[in-house]
Amino acid sequence: MRTIVLGGDGFCGWPTALHLSVQGHDVLIIDNLSRRKIDIELGVESLTPIASIEERLMVWNHSSNHKINFQNIDIFSEYYSLLRVINDFQPDNIVHFAEQRAAPYSMKNSKTKRYTVDNNITSTHNLLTAIVESDLDIHLVHLGTMGVYGYSSVGMKIPEGYLNVKLDVPSKGLVDQKIIYPTNPGSTYHMTKSLDQIMFAFYAKNNGIRITDLHQGIVWGTQTPETRLDEKFINRFDYDGDYGTVLNRFIMQAAVNYPLTVHGTGGQTRAFIHITDTVKCISLACSNPPVNGKQVMIRNQVSETHRVRNLAELISNKTGVKIAYLENPRKEASENDLEVENNSFLSLGLEPTYLDEGIVEEVYEIAKKYSSRANLKYIPCVSKW
Amino acid sequence: MRTIVLGGDGFCGWPTALHLSVQGHDVLIIDNLSRRKIDIELGVESLTPIASIEERLMVWNHSSNHKINFQNIDIFSEYYSLLRVINDFQPDNIVHFAEQRAAPYSMKNSKTKRYTVDNNITSTHNLLTAIVESDLDIHLVHLGTMGVYGYSSVGMKIPEGYLNVKLDVPSKGLVDQKIIYPTNPGSTYHMTKSLDQIMFAFYAKNNGIRITDLHQGIVWGTQTPETRLDEKFINRFDYDGDYGTVLNRFIMQAAVNYPLTVHGTGGQTRAFIHITDTVKCISLACSNPPVNGKQVMIRNQVSETHRVRNLAELISNKTGVKIAYLENPRKEASENDLEVENNSFLSLGLEPTYLDEGIVEEVYEIAKKYSSRANLKYIPCVSKW
Repeated sequence: MRTIVLGGDGFCGWPTALHLSVQGHDVLIIDNLSRRKIDIELGVESLTPIASIEERLMVWNHSSNHKINFQNIDIFSEYYSLLRVINDFQPDNIVHFAEQRAAPYSMKNSKTKRYTVDNNITSTHNLLTAIVESDLDIHLVHLGTMGVYGYSSVGMKIPEGYLNVKLDVPSKGLVDQKIIYPTNPGSTYHMTKSLDQIMFAFYAKNNGIRITDLHQGIVWGTQTPETRLDEKFINRFDYDGDYGTVLNRFIMQAAVNYPLTVHGTGGQTRAFIHITDTVKCISLACSNPPVNGKQVMIRNQVSETHRVRNLAELISNKTGVKIAYLENPRKEASENDLEVENNSFLSLGLEPTYLDEGIVEEVYEIAKKYSSRANLKYIPCVSKW
Repeated sequence: MRTIVLGGDGFCGWPTALHLSVQGHDVLIIDNLSRRKIDIELGVESLTPIASIEERLMVWNHSSNHKINFQNIDIFSEYYSLLRVINDFQPDNIVHFAEQRAAPYSMKNSKTKRYTVDNNITSTHNLLTAIVESDLDIHLVHLGTMGVYGYSSVGMKIPEGYLNVKLDVPSKGLVDQKIIYPTNPGSTYHMTKSLDQIMFAFYAKNNGIRITDLHQGIVWGTQTPETRLDEKFINRFDYDGDYGTVLNRFIMQAAVNYPLTVHGTGGQTRAFIHITDTVKCISLACSNPPVNGKQVMIRNQVSETHRVRNLAELISNKTGVKIAYLENPRKEASENDLEVENNSFLSLGLEPTYLDEGIVEEVYEIAKKYSSRANLKYIPCVSKW
């Protein structure tokens, strides 16, 4: 299969590109390197020393049978370059990670809010129109988030995309309807993924584009079997208050014996998945496109759910590092339940890595090894909303 | 009240600005004149000879006690100009018409699709962040469309924004939930209004912005009491295949004895409202903002519903002009029912103008009077989707 990975230099994109390459995909990475530029803007760095995309690919293409190519294209501002590449490369799949992906960054200020909406919506819509204009039968695989749903539970598992409801129709009584599960985003970033969902539904219905939208939990971990193959392939590890996801922040804090920072009561339940499972899910999604292009295939990309304070306790127990309860910067319920259907990938053969097994290994393999590179002042989250 | 009218030079915006001015609002029009520029791009013209915004306002400000000011600002690209004007003018209301508003135009090609999404979403989001950044308690009144809902009916009236459904929850049985009525847009333009709705819900919830979203039917008619006051105030009348709405196309076709062009069977049922009622509704919306900023106030701005072929027959009967049934360029059901709740504005005192009363007057007052300015080759809709 021929696969373009948009955002293929990023935290999920890079290990996905390598995994798909090993799986036999002919991979082309398109990236504008915006994530590295945001590091510069914020004055932070990946805990792990990541090589440039050129170095990464030089080593990969020297050692692997499957070459990966790279083009620096900004799909927000360079529509015709994107269209040309699609027409030239003739991909079977386009895997789309090219969105600004941090909720705290999206809520920093007016500029980052506007950047997040402009970049994510215009880029995704450019991609949709480019696929239409190319007239190729391309399967679009997009990384969405469980966070579009918000976290208020009515006591049922969140289904994979579609919800059966009953409408009270005069003269007919209760009528069954299937609707897209209503979104209730908690940040400007999450809002953009809710908007994406509406755009996908329209372009699937109107143009028959085959689309898989993956509602992913919070990713943890750093390395995958492929990124372990050479030091030059090491994946990024963010621990700052904007881009560090909760579990990776805990892992790094444990490694440097910094009290684990829990926001609020830590009673928020969240969904999680290991980066190794992320890349497997993308591969499975590519191999199992929707047959009918009229309806978006929505899969929940989630292995397990946990309360944040239980995670902190788990890591505290295993490492002896204390927990610090801080004020919650977000407008959200202090406690919530969350149950998520995830049979879609399990039925395709995914065997998840669970937190309980891999978490300590991650602390020692990555966080302790590179802890001398850590700058502790970047740990606190400074975006409040 | 101090009111900014974004898009105040357009078909709905101009008569609204005048009406609010007469109602005692201190009105500031902001417009980038994009609608006039699209006329140039398409090589078409309003059937009515519209004066420039400068001429319009020179005459208005000479004859009225209520001055209207104008600033040419592109709220898509000039965020800081928008923010400065908001901070300087300190509006109570911002009435937002500044979106590309034609479905056929939005579906012409990749460029117009991208323009419609970029312009509408970025502009509306810029406005939301500018209101947040201004820290003023501003009531945002936005013109949306009934078209976000698509036109498949389950036999119930479309409610005003929110839908009560029942969820089958394990261990609890049927649980009542109130959700935003799910959208099912039929064009890229309608899609942008669906996206707006999600953005409004987020910024209301997160920032407490008081927002009224008006789901308007298809507007017909040209003049309002205020635009009739002077020839220089005459409103635009579009009859081309992109911007001419169905009823105004029929009116103009009747005036020049051109067979009334019905797409498909004409079995599509649509919602309608006269331009005079549009401006009254906006005024009523400004005077009745939502009390609680946490939930968007959604009102259906609709007077009546009709099947397209019944409208054609009505006009044909009254004028003797024949009907021509053409192929439908749109992907839509050939026949649909549509019932719409519209008690919100009726309960605030709106007394609608109905088609049956005003339609022939419109043919003679406007369409016949200016028929020599018509170019018949622009009547057919050339956007197909």
